[in-house]
Amino acid sequence: MNLRLKLRDKPLSPPQILAFGFITIITLGTVLLMLPISRTVPLSWLDAFFTATSAVTVTGLIVVDTGTAFTTFGQTILMILIQIGGLGFLTFAVMSILFLGKKIRLKERILMQEALNQNSMGGIVRLIRSLFYFAISMELIATALLSIRWIPEYGISKGLFISLFHAVSSFNNAGFSLFNDSLSQYAADPLINIVITLLFVSGGIGFTVIYELMHKKKWRTWTLHTKIMLIGTFLINIFAILSFFILEMNNPHTIGAMPLNEQLWGSFFQGLTPRTAGFNSLDYGDMNNSTLMLTIFLMFIGAGSASTASGIKVTTLIIIILAVFAYLRGRNQVFAFRQRIETEVVIRSLSIIVISFFIVFVAIFMLSVTEDLPMMAVVFEAFSAFGTVGLSVGITDQLSSIGKPIIMFLMFIGRVGPLTIAFSLARSKPPHISYPKGEIFTG
Amino acid sequence: MNLRLKLRDKPLSPPQILAFGFITIITLGTVLLMLPISRTVPLSWLDAFFTATSAVTVTGLIVVDTGTAFTTFGQTILMILIQIGGLGFLTFAVMSILFLGKKIRLKERILMQEALNQNSMGGIVRLIRSLFYFAISMELIATALLSIRWIPEYGISKGLFISLFHAVSSFNNAGFSLFNDSLSQYAADPLINIVITLLFVSGGIGFTVIYELMHKKKWRTWTLHTKIMLIGTFLINIFAILSFFILEMNNPHTIGAMPLNEQLWGSFFQGLTPRTAGFNSLDYGDMNNSTLMLTIFLMFIGAGSASTASGIKVTTLIIIILAVFAYLRGRNQVFAFRQRIETEVVIRSLSIIVISFFIVFVAIFMLSVTEDLPMMAVVFEAFSAFGTVGLSVGITDQLSSIGKPIIMFLMFIGRVGPLTIAFSLARSKPPHISYPKGEIFTG
Ligand SMILES: [K+]
Ligand SMILES: [K+]
Repeated sequence: MNLRLKLRDKPLSPPQILAFGFITIITLGTVLLMLPISRTVPLSWLDAFFTATSAVTVTGLIVVDTGTAFTTFGQTILMILIQIGGLGFLTFAVMSILFLGKKIRLKERILMQEALNQNSMGGIVRLIRSLFYFAISMELIATALLSIRWIPEYGISKGLFISLFHAVSSFNNAGFSLFNDSLSQYAADPLINIVITLLFVSGGIGFTVIYELMHKKKWRTWTLHTKIMLIGTFLINIFAILSFFILEMNNPHTIGAMPLNEQLWGSFFQGLTPRTAGFNSLDYGDMNNSTLMLTIFLMFIGAGSASTASGIKVTTLIIIILAVFAYLRGRNQVFAFRQRIETEVVIRSLSIIVISFFIVFVAIFMLSVTEDLPMMAVVFEAFSAFGTVGLSVGITDQLSSIGKPIIMFLMFIGRVGPLTIAFSLARSKPPHISYPKGEIFTG
Repeated sequence: MNLRLKLRDKPLSPPQILAFGFITIITLGTVLLMLPISRTVPLSWLDAFFTATSAVTVTGLIVVDTGTAFTTFGQTILMILIQIGGLGFLTFAVMSILFLGKKIRLKERILMQEALNQNSMGGIVRLIRSLFYFAISMELIATALLSIRWIPEYGISKGLFISLFHAVSSFNNAGFSLFNDSLSQYAADPLINIVITLLFVSGGIGFTVIYELMHKKKWRTWTLHTKIMLIGTFLINIFAILSFFILEMNNPHTIGAMPLNEQLWGSFFQGLTPRTAGFNSLDYGDMNNSTLMLTIFLMFIGAGSASTASGIKVTTLIIIILAVFAYLRGRNQVFAFRQRIETEVVIRSLSIIVISFFIVFVAIFMLSVTEDLPMMAVVFEAFSAFGTVGLSVGITDQLSSIGKPIIMFLMFIGRVGPLTIAFSLARSKPPHISYPKGEIFTG
């Protein structure tokens, strides 16, 4: 009774609820994956925990082969964990309330606001209902399209299941595949390439962008956010595809020996996948160091806010670039498309980048102590986990029993959001004192 | 006549003069080092160019052994290049004017202001005269102290020369040594350890700090800059020494097999040297990956503004950390020691870090294409060059003829200052239009 009162006095903050929600689902997932009915092979608790974390955080790093180590039941568990993790347990919670006919309370609205990164409260409920319909429709349409390839190959029931699994995994940017070489055998298949990338790009660009595209037809009515996301995503993707092609065209282990048509499909897919999708149609263990460096950069950026993607986000990167250019040009305000970006947003972006980089750096440092693996592979793995991307040069199952929890921690922080975590640790009242200006030199 | 008028119409900007000055001295140095009188072995123009760049930018990365490949004449040339690079050709130019009795003109004052990173113009001339005296006194006192060790070992004239060379190289944070294993044979020698570190720390902390310490006795009269530099330097050094000791104490190739006394001296020296001194008393090729990661971080930070050191600077790092904490605590101003740090200074710090990181990242990316060396070694080398540190795991002479110019470019940018370079490329007028606030989400 006393305890309950105490809990009421100090309610959990939204980020704490978010984090505890994820932890609960991961724990539940771990137990379910350990059930004999879920798996075909012996599985350690750590590996089950790792797999559940990877699924709920929609990362896709794996320590056992998804297609062979798990039964259809186990794979279905994974698919559900991915769906919950991707759309957000929050959205699910709210949708249940909506479907049960209850009115949404203010506290839950604030919760959603944090989770979806929305600044204004109006329209949140409508937004979430809309995104739920959107997600399910996209996944079902994609399942139908993917069946065209996989039903002839695997029969109706298995073909349908494989199609559904990959549709859910793609839309939620989870990167889990039932094939042991991800999508490598379909590297030159236009249907698979197009359906999968369309899914993960529309899942990753952010629901507010999708929502706006569906409801407003004219460019000038869109928010600055939508404009920047669309143009930023387009430019980054073009840059990534071209770079990949140039860097790998002479590498005989990847696209070097392929006909041009396959080279282009390979570059297209590998150009898009690092910003949190995590499927691969070529083997990252065979790629040049330069390609791995480029991929690390793309994995750190990630895709859009309020999406199934992680990373620092495209907008954060662009705001920082705009702020630096504005500073160099002696301007005291940052703007884009004739709209002003407030200083507070710049400082927020700065904080996201600094905290993110700090977390990844500390993790890499710890891994350099605990793991006896090539540094390039370790650095790649850490950025992949933090961006919840799931690409790997192939060392995930070789990580030590300290290395795996470090990577799990990165996936968790990456998905919940480094700023969300930092906020919940550091919140305090602003002071009412004003201080005189101090003299300080930098750089 | 027309050309002269044109040059007068568009005078070079201070950063351009700074850059061209460095280029001129490097070119001159290259030619002098190629003279048969300067060297004992054949030397390619690229290697001479590399060595001159390394000396003028006070980096200390070497492609030939300084002690054996150059004659005493060549070594004297190097010492002079280091002195010019370290104190700044600017300071030299101004001092010549002062000694010639000419009055300093406004334009030259602005030039010094850029070079010394001083915000107010008053006292600049006094400051520079003072730093010149300070530098020369430090170097001469240190030469006398080092002679205690090196005259008995090498005789009077050679002993004195070795002492003077290392005094100049230390104070200017150049990291050039006449011994082929840097200071490894003196790893446990208290005299060498203390004199060398005192020199490079006092050269690296920034002349404005030294000047203030000499002229103001009370803590509360010091500028915020001096307070932050002193406390920041102290904390970072303690952290670095302790970390080094913990990370390497079980490594038999470095300090693992040494008696405690030598372990502590080794940790002390290696803890201090990465923030741009660049001497080493232990071999970095033998160190753990974790130690290399820590060292990369320290090399990127560097030491103080307006000093013989490079890197992003201690104050820049601390401002960013303070800004992030202030943001997380919901404060709209950043402060330290009851003084406010203006938003413009925060944005400036942000710009320094972003531009610096971008330059190093692009360089590493290019090196990953051109070099066939372990990535960890390449990353270490790039950060070492950018911070004009000069530490290496031993790959400098194995760099390709494209790799060497990339490293030279990093040393040059690192010394001239990434922000200085960026400013000279991007300068333009601020607009007089005000834009409405745009909606954008980050992270
Ligand atoms: K993923
Ligand atoms: K140096």
